[in-house]
Amino acid sequence: MRIKICQPTTHDASVEKIRKAVEEVVDPGTEFDVINVKKGPESLESNYDEAWATLFQLNLLEKAEEEGYDAAVSYCFGDPALKAAKEKLTIPVVGIHEPAIHLACMLGRKFSIIGIGGCGGRGYLEDLVKEYGLEHRLASVRSLDMNRAHSRDEQEKERVEQLLIEEAKKAVEEDGADTIVMGCGGFSGFIESAQKETGVPGIDPGKFAVKLAEDLVKLKLSQSKKAFPKPYTKKRSL
Amino acid sequence: MRIKICQPTTHDASVEKIRKAVEEVVDPGTEFDVINVKKGPESLESNYDEAWATLFQLNLLEKAEEEGYDAAVSYCFGDPALKAAKEKLTIPVVGIHEPAIHLACMLGRKFSIIGIGGCGGRGYLEDLVKEYGLEHRLASVRSLDMNRAHSRDEQEKERVEQLLIEEAKKAVEEDGADTIVMGCGGFSGFIESAQKETGVPGIDPGKFAVKLAEDLVKLKLSQSKKAFPKPYTKKRSL
Amino acid sequence: MRIKICQPTTHDASVEKIRKAVEEVVDPGTEFDVINVKKGPESLESNYDEAWATLFQLNLLEKAEEEGYDAAVSYCFGDPALKAAKEKLTIPVVGIHEPAIHLACMLGRKFSIIGIGGCGGRGYLEDLVKEYGLEHRLASVRSLDMNRAHSRDEQEKERVEQLLIEEAKKAVEEDGADTIVMGCGGFSGFIESAQKETGVPGIDPGKFAVKLAEDLVKLKLSQSKKAFPKPYTKKRSL
Amino acid sequence: MRIKICQPTTHDASVEKIRKAVEEVVDPGTEFDVINVKKGPESLESNYDEAWATLFQLNLLEKAEEEGYDAAVSYCFGDPALKAAKEKLTIPVVGIHEPAIHLACMLGRKFSIIGIGGCGGRGYLEDLVKEYGLEHRLASVRSLDMNRAHSRDEQEKERVEQLLIEEAKKAVEEDGADTIVMGCGGFSGFIESAQKETGVPGIDPGKFAVKLAEDLVKLKLSQSKKAFPKPYTKKRSL
Amino acid sequence: MRIKICQPTTHDASVEKIRKAVEEVVDPGTEFDVINVKKGPESLESNYDEAWATLFQLNLLEKAEEEGYDAAVSYCFGDPALKAAKEKLTIPVVGIHEPAIHLACMLGRKFSIIGIGGCGGRGYLEDLVKEYGLEHRLASVRSLDMNRAHSRDEQEKERVEQLLIEEAKKAVEEDGADTIVMGCGGFSGFIESAQKETGVPGIDPGKFAVKLAEDLVKLKLSQSKKAFPKPYTKKRSL
Amino acid sequence: MRIKICQPTTHDASVEKIRKAVEEVVDPGTEFDVINVKKGPESLESNYDEAWATLFQLNLLEKAEEEGYDAAVSYCFGDPALKAAKEKLTIPVVGIHEPAIHLACMLGRKFSIIGIGGCGGRGYLEDLVKEYGLEHRLASVRSLDMNRAHSRDEQEKERVEQLLIEEAKKAVEEDGADTIVMGCGGFSGFIESAQKETGVPGIDPGKFAVKLAEDLVKLKLSQSKKAFPKPYTKKRSL
Repeated sequence: MRIKICQPTTHDASVEKIRKAVEEVVDPGTEFDVINVKKGPESLESNYDEAWATLFQLNLLEKAEEEGYDAAVSYCFGDPALKAAKEKLTIPVVGIHEPAIHLACMLGRKFSIIGIGGCGGRGYLEDLVKEYGLEHRLASVRSLDMNRAHSRDEQEKERVEQLLIEEAKKAVEEDGADTIVMGCGGFSGFIESAQKETGVPGIDPGKFAVKLAEDLVKLKLSQSKKAFPKPYTKKRSL
Repeated sequence: MRIKICQPTTHDASVEKIRKAVEEVVDPGTEFDVINVKKGPESLESNYDEAWATLFQLNLLEKAEEEGYDAAVSYCFGDPALKAAKEKLTIPVVGIHEPAIHLACMLGRKFSIIGIGGCGGRGYLEDLVKEYGLEHRLASVRSLDMNRAHSRDEQEKERVEQLLIEEAKKAVEEDGADTIVMGCGGFSGFIESAQKETGVPGIDPGKFAVKLAEDLVKLKLSQSKKAFPKPYTKKRSL
Repeated sequence: MRIKICQPTTHDASVEKIRKAVEEVVDPGTEFDVINVKKGPESLESNYDEAWATLFQLNLLEKAEEEGYDAAVSYCFGDPALKAAKEKLTIPVVGIHEPAIHLACMLGRKFSIIGIGGCGGRGYLEDLVKEYGLEHRLASVRSLDMNRAHSRDEQEKERVEQLLIEEAKKAVEEDGADTIVMGCGGFSGFIESAQKETGVPGIDPGKFAVKLAEDLVKLKLSQSKKAFPKPYTKKRSL
Repeated sequence: MRIKICQPTTHDASVEKIRKAVEEVVDPGTEFDVINVKKGPESLESNYDEAWATLFQLNLLEKAEEEGYDAAVSYCFGDPALKAAKEKLTIPVVGIHEPAIHLACMLGRKFSIIGIGGCGGRGYLEDLVKEYGLEHRLASVRSLDMNRAHSRDEQEKERVEQLLIEEAKKAVEEDGADTIVMGCGGFSGFIESAQKETGVPGIDPGKFAVKLAEDLVKLKLSQSKKAFPKPYTKKRSL
Repeated sequence: MRIKICQPTTHDASVEKIRKAVEEVVDPGTEFDVINVKKGPESLESNYDEAWATLFQLNLLEKAEEEGYDAAVSYCFGDPALKAAKEKLTIPVVGIHEPAIHLACMLGRKFSIIGIGGCGGRGYLEDLVKEYGLEHRLASVRSLDMNRAHSRDEQEKERVEQLLIEEAKKAVEEDGADTIVMGCGGFSGFIESAQKETGVPGIDPGKFAVKLAEDLVKLKLSQSKKAFPKPYTKKRSL
Repeated sequence: MRIKICQPTTHDASVEKIRKAVEEVVDPGTEFDVINVKKGPESLESNYDEAWATLFQLNLLEKAEEEGYDAAVSYCFGDPALKAAKEKLTIPVVGIHEPAIHLACMLGRKFSIIGIGGCGGRGYLEDLVKEYGLEHRLASVRSLDMNRAHSRDEQEKERVEQLLIEEAKKAVEEDGADTIVMGCGGFSGFIESAQKETGVPGIDPGKFAVKLAEDLVKLKLSQSKKAFPKPYTKKRSL
């Protein structure tokens, strides 16, 4: 089984980070590649960034099928190009936001997402939860008031972790969350401390997405082509 | 007052058609320009097409503010780049889908959308209605089973009109709609016969969008910057 | 184009206030008259007041069509007699609550209404938001704890403005509103300071209602007679 | 225990009909009076009729408290003046629509209402179900295409019953209803045949309303004055 | 009329307590018996307890019909075995949670439940409100942080009452409740002080359930057998 | 990794059938045992059957933790004892209905469930979908009009398959489903033909449940103990 993991920002260092996170949970028989876009935004935490990333991410995902992969993952919590790729491709394509919040609904009653990007990032993620139809299970989106691009600086790491834990605790204590979802593909490293500090399950969306992609391949399932039919042939230029 | 109308397909002939439709309803004191993208899809009726159109449409909308326009319209029933532009711009930006269905809710109890693009187009538009939070007022989306790019052929015009009227009548008689919304910016010419044949109001989304843009300018209102804050400064390449 | 604006309280001084507010935004080619009921309540902020106002307001609205007006506005945030008039009349009739909250949904994600009439007024307005099907976008109704009839005293004006701004700020800071709707037709004078103090858009429901009435006339649209059919002929006495 | 039953139409003959229906179910220790308005509409099946009935019905209900009744019933399926009376009165006031559909939710999963007044009547009743927040349990409103005022003619009785049974059967067989609610206070006589023909429970809204009024008095319960506070004192003229 | 009241815990002393509460409100012509299970949990405040109680409670309820009762009540706020008994029996079966929250919706806009069993009890009761489809009217479930089995100790009574009143007050002042529902069949004794301290109606679920059972018998109504059909005959062993 | 699969009916032959289905998809490193209850119903398709099965199923699931399993599955489409077991156990417990419908939401827009047990079975499963909060994605539950216990007869197999395919086709063609979920743990054998005949994905709930259990163990996740806290210690007898 071969899975292609596509990262929609030009931040090349993310590729290796994702590879390490995925390696921890992938099945022995699964091969996977991680690749990122060469054009687009350096990070993605708003509708505006998504608009810059979508077409380049779509092109990465589209190629997965020609390259013979069994499944593709849009590895970013904004799930950019996900529905477009579900239309174009026959192999299963999964985002990381959509599976994570469905899983959260199975583990608890109310989940909170801890994301990034200030109030813009918060609105952006709340809209996605609504789009997936799970807003009645959402306790809150809490969003670090930072530009994701800056938050990756090595010297910021500790501060980011501290803020993230603080927000996760508030989500549990003030907002009524009983399950936490990390609202960024790059927050894998903070799951363990978040779980320890809050006492509730913390979902790493990227890792579960990869497991789900494996499951779909094993179960021979893919997105419904009645729901996501092949687009008509027409002229499209870039 | 100056309004910029942006059309997100490479189909140049649409520009003149839109200009004529808008001229019929615009206030005497309003100047407007219609412009279309030079790259992207030749028509837009799926998530896949939208992914191809968004960035180019966003660039047109973004320039409106620099060029001194008082408002901008994303003139396509998929409202491509709308939320991204609401974030980036200070001047009011409106789509044509969002205003049309809000208006439909004020004129009746249940509306149907008559769109195009087969079952893919239907799902695409249903998702937008949900995103705008008005699915409880939706009687149905009915979608002509055609590629929008082909439906523009002169020899198809009569057939398109006939199919469209048929679907509108079914929406009223079978689905319980009491108001019809045209699900494409290019269906202006069919409103009159649709209203006559169904006996219910038919909304031309493009025309109302332009009136709403004028209203916003006169009322000195624009999208909330708390809801749609300016994106962070970062590297983004095309 | 001639528009009739009907005010459902016996407070005659409101007529001139409304005329001034409307004049600021109306199109040059639009004529309008403002008239109020001669029987009914002196102010309206509860179901009880509405029950006293409805029939007299309906009679004013009904006459608009005979008098040759092109549209009628029920100019009070309780939208009294609105659905009854939509049934009886062929010309478009609009309330001021219904358009205002639909507009709020297009400008932001969550709106708050700042009304009057204590907790009775709050419940009354919350019910209307539900009736219009937009409660999922409502951050809060905040209601000044005053009898509207007293709040009009000249010596109360400053205090009313101050309380209103306080509540608007709480709506934005505590309840998550990103858009404010004035919950009374007579709050036009406070919009500017409310916007300035909160930093979010503030909607004057009366002004937008008049613009929408103009739009409907220009677009040749009116309420669906399938949704709001003419009432049967029968004996009705007053 | 004394209950006042108020009927909001000028159709005097209804008074005796209601008295007979209520007598069949009332407790031995309960006294009740039935009274109707002297001004207003002769029947009520639209928002327009309700606007004509509300103030006169409110006045009947208001007097109940002064007259020493323990509870009051607004005996019409449109529940006219119900919320206004809940505000003004301290003794319990109940409508007949609101209790009937709550009861239907306890007896089955999906209910249908069989009302009268054509598509206008249907929309009117659907809106009430939404106002009461139970639209997710509504299978359908089916509405006889008749003016209620005419349907009372003796020679129409058989035809009304036949049509009503037909609609009730369609509600069960086509719309998925498992419980039927009679959508008019004057349909008591048709319950038995409707139940027999459809095989599902049929709720007579007037009878249950009176039982509920008795229950509230025995349980010493009334509408919450926090939800329905006393209206402010002010000038109101009729 | 004979009603059987079934209590699903092995706590025998509850039987007499329930008998006394019911006697206060039952009609003069109504006979009733109270009986409890001999196996199962000693109190019920979680899904786990419910799983232990359901089959034994079902057996009590099932026998009611053979024994000639006219109606049966599952007298516990978890409504254990309610839907199963609605399927098996022809005579009306009512829970106490379901009627209580429907009644709360008729008395106010938002209700809170004051239950017991810590955060487990809270989640358990919130799920039931959702199952009954009334979560949009729920202000909050507040749950005493105690094992129900211990809370019955005579020396705990005062403390329980005090905590319960505190939570009821918070529900009204902080959560926006205008109506209180006691979330346990054994809280009858606290209604009076809760109403007095909060100023809003307090519903004793057990008492209203018995009144509703009487109403159903008088109105000759029972659960819809289309919604709750008789189970198939098959082998079932205990 | 060791997983315990619990089947809540006394039908012993199901054990081997389940074993075979699970073997097809389980990871090489996963050990699993299938066990069924010794008391309870011989099949489960109603609330009544569930009431007979719950306690015995709970006991099987409870022992899983003592026996050292890493996860437990309640292998029946009614998910009996699921929430009770989530409370009692620390290891992950999954049902098969809950994961299946969440997966269906990720593969398409609208799903239908093809179950068994006539209209009683249909209502039973519709309630579960609501309990899981996904009714807005449900196209329909279609239910074979058969006693599940009889449908297992060897001579019925072909007829069951035929009926099931017919219902699946109607779900897709008439109800708008784009994804099918098998509404019984024993319908594994019909997935392939159902997918072929309808052209949409068909989900075998049992198989996905086992994959999800594996995923949870690998991701070190389990149900939130804040949502499903340990029940209090008290007397419970069987």
